[in-house]
Amino acid sequence: MTAQNTNSAMPQQLDAEGRLRHLITLEGLPRALIERLLNRAQQFIRPLGAPPPRSSALAGVTVANLFGEASTRTRGSFELAARRLGADIINLEVHLSSRSKGETILDTVYTLQSMHIDVLVMREAESGVPGYVARHVAPHVSVLSAGESHLSHPTQGLLDALTIRQCKGGFQKLAVAIVGDIAHSRVARSAFHALQALGIGALRLVAPPGLMPAPEEFPACERVHSLEQGIRGVDVIMMLRIQKERISGPAVPDGASYFREFGLTRERLRYAKPEAIVMHPGPMNRGVEIDSEVADGPQSVIQRQVTNGVAVRMAVLEAVTEGLRRDWNRA
Amino acid sequence: MTAQNTNSAMPQQLDAEGRLRHLITLEGLPRALIERLLNRAQQFIRPLGAPPPRSSALAGVTVANLFGEASTRTRGSFELAARRLGADIINLEVHLSSRSKGETILDTVYTLQSMHIDVLVMREAESGVPGYVARHVAPHVSVLSAGESHLSHPTQGLLDALTIRQCKGGFQKLAVAIVGDIAHSRVARSAFHALQALGIGALRLVAPPGLMPAPEEFPACERVHSLEQGIRGVDVIMMLRIQKERISGPAVPDGASYFREFGLTRERLRYAKPEAIVMHPGPMNRGVEIDSEVADGPQSVIQRQVTNGVAVRMAVLEAVTEGLRRDWNRA
Amino acid sequence: MTAQNTNSAMPQQLDAEGRLRHLITLEGLPRALIERLLNRAQQFIRPLGAPPPRSSALAGVTVANLFGEASTRTRGSFELAARRLGADIINLEVHLSSRSKGETILDTVYTLQSMHIDVLVMREAESGVPGYVARHVAPHVSVLSAGESHLSHPTQGLLDALTIRQCKGGFQKLAVAIVGDIAHSRVARSAFHALQALGIGALRLVAPPGLMPAPEEFPACERVHSLEQGIRGVDVIMMLRIQKERISGPAVPDGASYFREFGLTRERLRYAKPEAIVMHPGPMNRGVEIDSEVADGPQSVIQRQVTNGVAVRMAVLEAVTEGLRRDWNRA
Repeated sequence: MTAQNTNSAMPQQLDAEGRLRHLITLEGLPRALIERLLNRAQQFIRPLGAPPPRSSALAGVTVANLFGEASTRTRGSFELAARRLGADIINLEVHLSSRSKGETILDTVYTLQSMHIDVLVMREAESGVPGYVARHVAPHVSVLSAGESHLSHPTQGLLDALTIRQCKGGFQKLAVAIVGDIAHSRVARSAFHALQALGIGALRLVAPPGLMPAPEEFPACERVHSLEQGIRGVDVIMMLRIQKERISGPAVPDGASYFREFGLTRERLRYAKPEAIVMHPGPMNRGVEIDSEVADGPQSVIQRQVTNGVAVRMAVLEAVTEGLRRDWNRA
Repeated sequence: MTAQNTNSAMPQQLDAEGRLRHLITLEGLPRALIERLLNRAQQFIRPLGAPPPRSSALAGVTVANLFGEASTRTRGSFELAARRLGADIINLEVHLSSRSKGETILDTVYTLQSMHIDVLVMREAESGVPGYVARHVAPHVSVLSAGESHLSHPTQGLLDALTIRQCKGGFQKLAVAIVGDIAHSRVARSAFHALQALGIGALRLVAPPGLMPAPEEFPACERVHSLEQGIRGVDVIMMLRIQKERISGPAVPDGASYFREFGLTRERLRYAKPEAIVMHPGPMNRGVEIDSEVADGPQSVIQRQVTNGVAVRMAVLEAVTEGLRRDWNRA
Repeated sequence: MTAQNTNSAMPQQLDAEGRLRHLITLEGLPRALIERLLNRAQQFIRPLGAPPPRSSALAGVTVANLFGEASTRTRGSFELAARRLGADIINLEVHLSSRSKGETILDTVYTLQSMHIDVLVMREAESGVPGYVARHVAPHVSVLSAGESHLSHPTQGLLDALTIRQCKGGFQKLAVAIVGDIAHSRVARSAFHALQALGIGALRLVAPPGLMPAPEEFPACERVHSLEQGIRGVDVIMMLRIQKERISGPAVPDGASYFREFGLTRERLRYAKPEAIVMHPGPMNRGVEIDSEVADGPQSVIQRQVTNGVAVRMAVLEAVTEGLRRDWNRA
């Protein structure tokens, strides 16, 4: 298997009856389906300090967390989501790479599926792996991407959309700026797919030239190379994490100069609408892409994004196992 | 403690009433006991896609997974088996080695047992450790080997026997070939013990001279140095994993030449009976010991072995805690 | 953040109504509160081989085990304690260090708390981190230290006190010797705080000069540089683990000479009262600080300490979530 043929086909994410079976990307998902997921996720929201939402909807369902890359935050969020729905969840350090020696990706996947694991949650550095797996699992097994290379992070896109909807009530009249390393960001791509499907008013990409995506990507988005200009009048600012290794090339300034040009400070935040919200997928580089006064300020909704993340993952787990559980109840 | 004295005595695996208390090796286990375990495991088999078997038989029992060697597959199988029986299970990265500095093996074991851990599942690279531990734990604690050096992998032996019985209905009339690195294989040794106890018709060892076990081992087995000859007319072919580091010596060919001589291809498979099954304990080296056409072909029962593995581990966990749970119910 | 400002304030461990909310240190805790914790822990004690204590008191509560340092023993003990109370527990490899790049300590903590994690159990090499976190979490979140640098290990202090009370019936008439590397020991400091609060009769520090704490620490304790003299007539001997790297300086002898001078042997044990108990927090260095004849002898209560550890952690988890659970029940 090469990266090419893992990439060769868009996975079929919906089953014959139009239900969500896999979640690899938000690209091409029907708006109504995304809205149903957001509505269901909203029902799993409780104030912090109140008992978390719980059900036994997924009792008997087994979820495996397969994280090749370390990701405490996302792994923990999926683990809590699965557990609060009553699923059994096991964490396995499995590296699903076409470059790994010995066992192939599919051998590993078939082994897991033969243990009655029904949902595979996978974080993959290599493009195409989640879709490749989804095309080969048994009919009752679902694949959820927890982040795939620079391509896709669908549950992040959903939680971002849910956060915006909670704060702003809708999408049509909004202007959203995505700021930072858009070229390498799966968060940006999934936000784009979600917001486009939900009919966002306007989407602006704000980045230095070296971090701007290729021209054919992110169609219909305005591209701006200045932060002040880019966030002028917007309702939502989605900051991205800057990876240190990305900001050493000639086209991109280093950490301190990046902050001087693109760091979101309180002063710059005034260019946006007064009630604009500031989002960040975490983990933040304070003093690089965002100033602490903004990260901890009244317009920040960063912690709410985390809470929404668990709720969205509960909604997705419930959705992708709906067919399985219906079959179990019939039998 | 030295490796010598950990090895000094065969552990007492049965309690005074003849019930299984530890499972360190299949060697010397009564045939009736093995058959009872297989019968019970069979009751835990469900079709993939159906709800997995579940019970609360082990509610209140605590199982610790102690894996010194990384083993996603076997650890996950034990974890799911324990959880589906309602046990509490904790995964601990504990290295039980006589060579480790500081705490002795028994200090670690006594610590775990003092936390009300009732079953210790252990994977050990060092010979003799599971038996040594079993001889020293409290009377209510059970030790299950999840693989011990090159010596023993008893739950693998049971799942292999169960798979053969499911496919072939019995053992007496069967010819079985074990193919590959038998010298270093705990899988081969446990298969030998299980099949011998169950009255297998004929067992053939098929390997190049450098991977053949010592003459005093595997009594009553025919030894063959050619794959074609070795699998001729057999009902069951048990392939073993070839470890790369084993096939560099002068007596053993390298990867590609190993495949030329001993790799199981579709052409060679024709030497076996037409309805012969092909087994592999995983993880496979495709293109070294087995060709993909065979691994994924209609005679392969490799995925079924994985499913049987969970079922067999459920049966074993239930069996070794039977005395404990009876005492609890009496009290 | 610097180590200095993490250290700057003693955390408020009690809430407005005097209930335990965080457990960072035993220093300054009211005697009545410590006694209530010990009484409650005692109710969670069962004989080994009997079913472990279980309840659903913490159903719906989420506990996160954050262990920067590897600690199988303490992590496992907290995990079992939480699970036997019906809590959800997740293990996260999170390093809460002011020196780590990128995300700050508080970013990590706010992320966890936003996932409806109610109790943060943390083992920290860096002084001041647990208190710093406790001062910043949301009002319903509790922080439990599972060991902080050389400063504090409060649940260890409680389990040591419980063990002494079980064996000796009380504290007032007892003489206790703490032996070994007191200078670097969080175990010694928490034992000191607990026993002082509980009105211990006499506490002696026994160590070579290089391992004795600073003069202003451990007030009112006699300091003795000879083991024989130090344990003469005591009721309780608390041995500490000697870390190999501590015993290479000029003021401290090496392993073998340490044993000659300070190793607890059967002969030396005769200097204590005949019914004196011997304790050790584990893991032991047999042949350095303690001889196997003593560690495994009739006066050793080392395994009982481990059992008490789970019980004490259950009592603490129940106590710190009492307010939270009361609010949930009211709502």
